[in-house]
Amino acid sequence: MIVLGLDPGLGTTGWGVIRAEGNRLAHVANGRIRTDSAAPLGARLVALDAALAALIDRHRPAATAVEEVFVNSNPQSTLKLGQARGVCLLAAARHDIVVGEYAARLVKKALVGTGGASKDQVHAMVARLLPGVAIDGADAADALAVAITHAHHLASNRALGGR
Amino acid sequence: MIVLGLDPGLGTTGWGVIRAEGNRLAHVANGRIRTDSAAPLGARLVALDAALAALIDRHRPAATAVEEVFVNSNPQSTLKLGQARGVCLLAAARHDIVVGEYAARLVKKALVGTGGASKDQVHAMVARLLPGVAIDGADAADALAVAITHAHHLASNRALGGR
Repeated sequence: MIVLGLDPGLGTTGWGVIRAEGNRLAHVANGRIRTDSAAPLGARLVALDAALAALIDRHRPAATAVEEVFVNSNPQSTLKLGQARGVCLLAAARHDIVVGEYAARLVKKALVGTGGASKDQVHAMVARLLPGVAIDGADAADALAVAITHAHHLASNRALGGR
Repeated sequence: MIVLGLDPGLGTTGWGVIRAEGNRLAHVANGRIRTDSAAPLGARLVALDAALAALIDRHRPAATAVEEVFVNSNPQSTLKLGQARGVCLLAAARHDIVVGEYAARLVKKALVGTGGASKDQVHAMVARLLPGVAIDGADAADALAVAITHAHHLASNRALGGR
């Protein structure tokens, strides 16, 4: 099963694709989608949407996962994030891909074992769980982390007899 | 020239279409796009996107206008609004329609003459400027107001020799 993790942002959206077979994970690809901060907002969202459609087309994920948002104390940042996040969720849903949302604490717990883990600990664990991976920066690492969380979640559900 | 005004929201997006010829305005249509609050977020965004595409297809606006956002004090509301707004801006930009953004104070000033006007004053002026209009609630009235603001803005620019 191919899982696409996304870390949405208007300027930079991190993405990571993994293959999950039960508890076994393998890295497929990761990277960043950047939009031109000098371009009009609509054009930036179109660029993000086109890049996501290309990603989905290339990797054909069965599931997508995003972090539930850490709502920023700056409302304008939250609004920008929301706009990029809306485009990410729309891109997945338009391709009939189920989107899982995971709280940041849950991602940390799934990877490091504690909800209070640091970003560095999470990124180190992503590298350990996906041997040989070359990670394209912090946003892509976050995207891979949420993809791994989703894969774990699906594996546990199966072990428990759920869907 | 056909102008589409939008008042984005995840639950309800108000819309209003007007025809502007210089300073003369005519109402074309207005309404609300609602999404099912019980549906997953992705599905709601897909429903909003589909309704917007149908609207744009039917009325073929040359321009779209949205209010610059009144950022809510509740960050989760701001995030929801951002997600819906991102889908609205994307829908317009994907159809190569320029999107104008206007601060709420500017909309009030354009319609009532003062940036401190009340919502009721704005809505009354929308009804006066578009004789015979039947307005489908407050969200549609707000959408018509921002469409009118955009039309005024274009007319003034032309009068001043701008584009």
